[in-house]
Formats: sequence, structure tokens, C-alpha cells
Amino acid sequence: MVHAVIPFRPTNPKTRLSCILSQEEREKFALRMLSDVISTTNSACCRTVLLCTENISVEGAETVVKPLGLNEALNEYLAENDDSVLIIMSDIPLATRDSVIEMVKTGSDIAVVPGRGGGTNAIFVKNPKSFHVDFYGASFLDHLNICRDSGLTVEIVDSFRLSTDIDEKDDLVEIFLHSKGESRGFLENLGIKMSVEKGRVGVHRHTHKETP
Amino acid sequence: MVHAVIPFRPTNPKTRLSCILSQEEREKFALRMLSDVISTTNSACCRTVLLCTENISVEGAETVVKPLGLNEALNEYLAENDDSVLIIMSDIPLATRDSVIEMVKTGSDIAVVPGRGGGTNAIFVKNPKSFHVDFYGASFLDHLNICRDSGLTVEIVDSFRLSTDIDEKDDLVEIFLHSKGESRGFLENLGIKMSVEKGRVGVHRHTHKETP
Repeated sequence: MVHAVIPFRPTNPKTRLSCILSQEEREKFALRMLSDVISTTNSACCRTVLLCTENISVEGAETVVKPLGLNEALNEYLAENDDSVLIIMSDIPLATRDSVIEMVKTGSDIAVVPGRGGGTNAIFVKNPKSFHVDFYGASFLDHLNICRDSGLTVEIVDSFRLSTDIDEKDDLVEIFLHSKGESRGFLENLGIKMSVEKGRVGVHRHTHKETP
Repeated sequence: MVHAVIPFRPTNPKTRLSCILSQEEREKFALRMLSDVISTTNSACCRTVLLCTENISVEGAETVVKPLGLNEALNEYLAENDDSVLIIMSDIPLATRDSVIEMVKTGSDIAVVPGRGGGTNAIFVKNPKSFHVDFYGASFLDHLNICRDSGLTVEIVDSFRLSTDIDEKDDLVEIFLHSKGESRGFLENLGIKMSVEKGRVGVHRHTHKETP
């Protein structure tokens, strides 16, 4: 059974959303995005594992605690497992069952999904002992290079939904446009809405006017 | 035979790239991106038509002149044709043969590809007389609404490559990461390169230092 491994940092995540969400709200929002991703990986029949520096409990996934950096934790996990591993980020709530299934049924040794700007949003490793990850920077190119150097075949999966990571205020638009998941419900409950102004789509947060 | 219709404005395009390209360079770059898209639609066995407000000649496509606004020109074209029409933007040079074929072989009446931020990057119309376009603003949602109101079935095609339109300096990174086409060659010839600084990927333009 494919392990879907989701690295997750619960404390002070998504700092580039500070312009619209408080730290407490960002922590809750990150958990809602995580929950959307877990629903998706479970629906694609993966065994979903949260890889975390501390022990937290989230419905639908088991937690593996590794008090290490992102690369170190993932590489230790890969080295310890024999089943295929799908590493998938917690901030891609548009991920769908179909897009995840497309990854895990690849005919190549590795399937990789680039994020905007050269990151890696998801990477499927058929034989986990044969590969190591190198996140940060232009990790998409780094991962292609690791495949080439290791003689591993690689499929680049072309999916807008998997390539869309939510980092900045403008990215929230994509959730309103393309998701009906928990992340969207959370934003709506905060009074955040999509708006079209001067032909451009954005989000704004409705704030109640104080009565004197 | 499917008509691939590419609306194109040759004069002063892509103004949001003014920070890195002069007007003359932007006009040439827009033509190189167009050329990449034409190669792709031709490779997918479409008859490629440039829809333009003035008569220009570009290899690989025939030109239809309509001195109208974008929506008016496209809707007139749809009303005049019986063959299926794929409307595809000229600024999505990452488009591939496979992603275009996925659109034109849809089982639905309409196949649509969202751009980032709610735009529409490509839309396939099986029966052109049954549909009209409404670009600008949140056109992706507008097009879904038009389908619903007209009783047309719609497939939303999930493709990072088709969803990536090149509007801003940061978007150029995607060309360096994912394309080997003419657009990339043009940027490289200008001395524009991809760079990784502090873990973030960007582009910069190499300028020769003046000797005093």
C-alpha cells in the first residue's frame, strides 16, 4: 500500500498570509488545508502518514514524529520503508483523488509535480530506498537531477490542481474558484470573500464596523 | 478539423513585463510565445487561425482580421463557423501537444482551462454556434455559467502547462524551468537567466557594465 507522507509544521505556518490572517488563524487554516489533503490521499487508497516534529493528532492520518529538518526527516522515512511513498505537501488543498491516482499509477520510477517557481509539490517514489529528497530552492530541478544521477526514470505530472500551493493572499483566490473543501469553508467563516475589481480577481476580508 | 483560434495583439503587448523588457522586446517576445503555441496546435493537427485586429503574417497560421474587441471578434468567429473551435491564448508557451489533444478529445460540449486568478487560458467549443465567450474579469466562472445557462456539458481540464500564462517577470521562471521553445531561446539571447537566491527562484537580466 502506498504511504502518503505529508510533512507538517503546526506552529506559525504560512507567514506570507500574515497580511490577512493572524497566527492563530494561520495555524487553524493550515490544519484545514492539511485535512483537505488527507481526505484526498485517503480517497486514493493511500495509508496517510503525517510527518511532524512533534506529536499531534489529526483525523484520518497516523503521526510519525521525527524532530529533524524537512529533508532529514523525509530521507530517514524513505530509508526505513519498503512500500512506495508519495510525499505530498500539506498546502495543496486543490489536490483531487484523480490527480493523486495519476501519480501513484505512473509507469516510471518517480513521478513529480512542480510547484510554481521551481518547488516540488508532490513526489512519488516507487522504491523509497533508491531515492533521497532535496527540498528548498529550485527543488524541482534538483529532484530531476537526482533521478538522472541515480538512473531513475521520471514522469512529470501535469496538474494545475497539484501545482497550486497556497502561500500568499492572491493564492486564496484559487481556493474560492476551485475548491469546496474545508479550507474554503474556514475562509468563508472568517468573512473572507472573493471579489472582482477592475477586471482583476482578489480576496478581501469583511470587517464589522465598530459602533461608537 | 478543429480550428485553433489564437487572438493576438501585436502592438505594445505584455506591459507588465516592462520592468525587464522594452516595448520592442515585448513585441518580439509575444511573437515568440505565439510561435510556440502555433507549433503546438499544429502538432495536435489543428488548423491554426490568428485572430487579429490588423493583417499580420506569421508562419504556421492563417490570419483572420477582425477590427473588434476580443469578445466581439471571437463571438463573430464562433457564429460564422461550423467546425469545432479551440480558442487558445498566445501567452501560454508551455502548452504541449498532449494537453491540447486532451482538450479537443473531450466527451463534453465544452472543455475549459482556467488561468491563475480566474481567467480562461483555453476553451474548446464542440459546436461553435451554441456558445459565446465572455473574457475579462473572472472569465473562468463566467464561462461555466454560460455553459450552465445554455445546457452545455463542460469538462475542466487540469493542466499546469495550459494554466500557466506569462504576464509578469516572475512568470518567466516557468519558461526556463519547463520549456525548450522559441520563447526561452529569445530570453536567453537577451541575457536573461534564471537564478536561485536565498532559496527563491527568479530571473535576472545580465547587463554589460559600461566602461568609462
